[in-house]
Amino acid sequence: MKIADRMASIQPFHVMALLARARELEAAGRSIIHMEIGEPDFITPRPVIEAGLAALQQGKTHYTPATGLPALRERIAAFYNDRYGVAVEAERIVITPGASAALQLVMAALVNPGDHVLMADPGYPCNRNFVYLVNGEPVGIPVDAASGYQPTVQQVNELWTEKVAALLVASPSNPTGTLLSAATLQGYFSTAMEKGGSLVVDEIYHGLTYGSPAQTALAISDELFVINSFSKYFGMTGWRLGWLVAPRDVVPEIDKLAQNLFLAAPTLAQHAALKAFDEQNIAILESRREEFRLRRDYLLPALREIGFDIPVTPEGAFYLYAKSLPASCDPWRSVLPYIQYLKAFLYSDPLQNILGAHDSLADKK
Amino acid sequence: MKIADRMASIQPFHVMALLARARELEAAGRSIIHMEIGEPDFITPRPVIEAGLAALQQGKTHYTPATGLPALRERIAAFYNDRYGVAVEAERIVITPGASAALQLVMAALVNPGDHVLMADPGYPCNRNFVYLVNGEPVGIPVDAASGYQPTVQQVNELWTEKVAALLVASPSNPTGTLLSAATLQGYFSTAMEKGGSLVVDEIYHGLTYGSPAQTALAISDELFVINSFSKYFGMTGWRLGWLVAPRDVVPEIDKLAQNLFLAAPTLAQHAALKAFDEQNIAILESRREEFRLRRDYLLPALREIGFDIPVTPEGAFYLYAKSLPASCDPWRSVLPYIQYLKAFLYSDPLQNILGAHDSLADKK
Repeated sequence: MKIADRMASIQPFHVMALLARARELEAAGRSIIHMEIGEPDFITPRPVIEAGLAALQQGKTHYTPATGLPALRERIAAFYNDRYGVAVEAERIVITPGASAALQLVMAALVNPGDHVLMADPGYPCNRNFVYLVNGEPVGIPVDAASGYQPTVQQVNELWTEKVAALLVASPSNPTGTLLSAATLQGYFSTAMEKGGSLVVDEIYHGLTYGSPAQTALAISDELFVINSFSKYFGMTGWRLGWLVAPRDVVPEIDKLAQNLFLAAPTLAQHAALKAFDEQNIAILESRREEFRLRRDYLLPALREIGFDIPVTPEGAFYLYAKSLPASCDPWRSVLPYIQYLKAFLYSDPLQNILGAHDSLADKK
Repeated sequence: MKIADRMASIQPFHVMALLARARELEAAGRSIIHMEIGEPDFITPRPVIEAGLAALQQGKTHYTPATGLPALRERIAAFYNDRYGVAVEAERIVITPGASAALQLVMAALVNPGDHVLMADPGYPCNRNFVYLVNGEPVGIPVDAASGYQPTVQQVNELWTEKVAALLVASPSNPTGTLLSAATLQGYFSTAMEKGGSLVVDEIYHGLTYGSPAQTALAISDELFVINSFSKYFGMTGWRLGWLVAPRDVVPEIDKLAQNLFLAAPTLAQHAALKAFDEQNIAILESRREEFRLRRDYLLPALREIGFDIPVTPEGAFYLYAKSLPASCDPWRSVLPYIQYLKAFLYSDPLQNILGAHDSLADKK
């Protein structure tokens, strides 16, 4: 059977394969500590579950509009005002079936075949594949500990050729957990405007920060794209719910894509998420954030102690990114099935090499 | 802001815009009879809702594997055996966030930029946009009442140039409600094999037939793609759950795309759908099918009586496709907001012209 050429560029998102294997072992009665996938181990907080139960009891099982429940869009707009002091019109907020769908909508709306999209390398492995989907070319910006694993404005300026349609950055970043300052975000945005392209900011890990809170790029301008999610801070991974904030003029384009590609985000998830911003729920989320902070503060020195080279202290998200493993990890090769479950957690280059799963864009050159 | 060229080809899926407006009017206290969108007016049957409630109570809110819960894949495989007498390995069944996602996976896996995809015109309006998404070219096959609004094997043979990657057909068809015979499906498949392309069969409206049951293309070969859904017969639209059956060798490609593009289908929906095939639930679905049949049998002659030209009696789905409207409909122009809610129901060319929403691919030439 003839397969499209893009399939040769698109690599598996290995953590999902590991998750499938882990679930198999669980089904067979084994006890698994899940470190393979980027989701809180906590289940969704009770207030949101209660709202889901109520919606289901009321038979809310039909489609919503493609852009989502108007009440949820309003609620998110209010959240931007309350938490960030930023005014965002509800009409600019599009509810999506997970942040994955938001990434896809943006790439489909912006990227022509052959266009380039700049992104940090290492970064979220799926990002490049949303670009390949629409026959664009992801261009990795090599980042390291010196710039907190984030692209410098200078790098972005230098790499932004005529072929670049957009720059995609993340704060907190995945997998390195570092934040972008308001000044850097402003620098990116100015460059994008100057070059006639777009800035797309992944704010999926907003809320999960352990020092100063993350800045939203929406404070800088209305003329950029912000992607967020109910999965991470709000603990709603399996519900598949996220959102996209788009420039006002682009919303009709995003809407028509969403109408065609997804019809709508899951209805129950949307009704449940209406309670996600309630005081009682936020209190639970904040105690979970504290738990993540405690884990980071325990694991970071402990892993360094046993020989992991972790150059940057993550300020957000829930990953530790190791530059190298201790020599003592070598025997782990013989217990590969167990090590695999550390992969997404550590995202370390040597470990990925052990797994044959090193995905740097630079390697493709 | 620079928008990708494909956005000029992608038209809104108008029924979603109408749905959004209808929901606004409902929120304002108006009573709306929903005829604008392809979903049963019934809510999801109680056994599935109960299963959803139980899953939620048990805190099943984490990600599932990208291809779905193994138990659900097994359950669907058993369904193919029970209902059609066809053996389908569970490994070939990929659970998707709605049939929309299944359509997207197939097009992304098969279509190179510039490749053609053949499809009936009129047909489901979003189909062409899944092709535009990946920079392919949809090619409409003009169909009319003479062939039951389905492409003839001869048409397919004649139109299948070197540029064609796939043929996409539907049985029951949307919006015309006609079925494909086993012989026609076999003819399509033989042509696809001969030409070195793929056959994709939309079986989303399977189960909702009012005479002889629909044939599954899976009875013909394992080397084709079948798309199905929990939305229509199973009444689970808002849960966003469908599935794709792919040739065995292509499943890893589909899996890796799903891992990247969607992560996974909604978890609750998958747990709830485990009960969709239970005897008690099927009994409810069958009584609903009878209700749809009664409505068809009432409306079809009644609409013909008042002057609607409906050349073909729909054998499945829940649409009536009118070729022309009675002259008496002319005054309807003045009550456009009310007429709009008939659109998806009637899908009539003249009515779509009134709405300025006629979407024939032929018009684009």
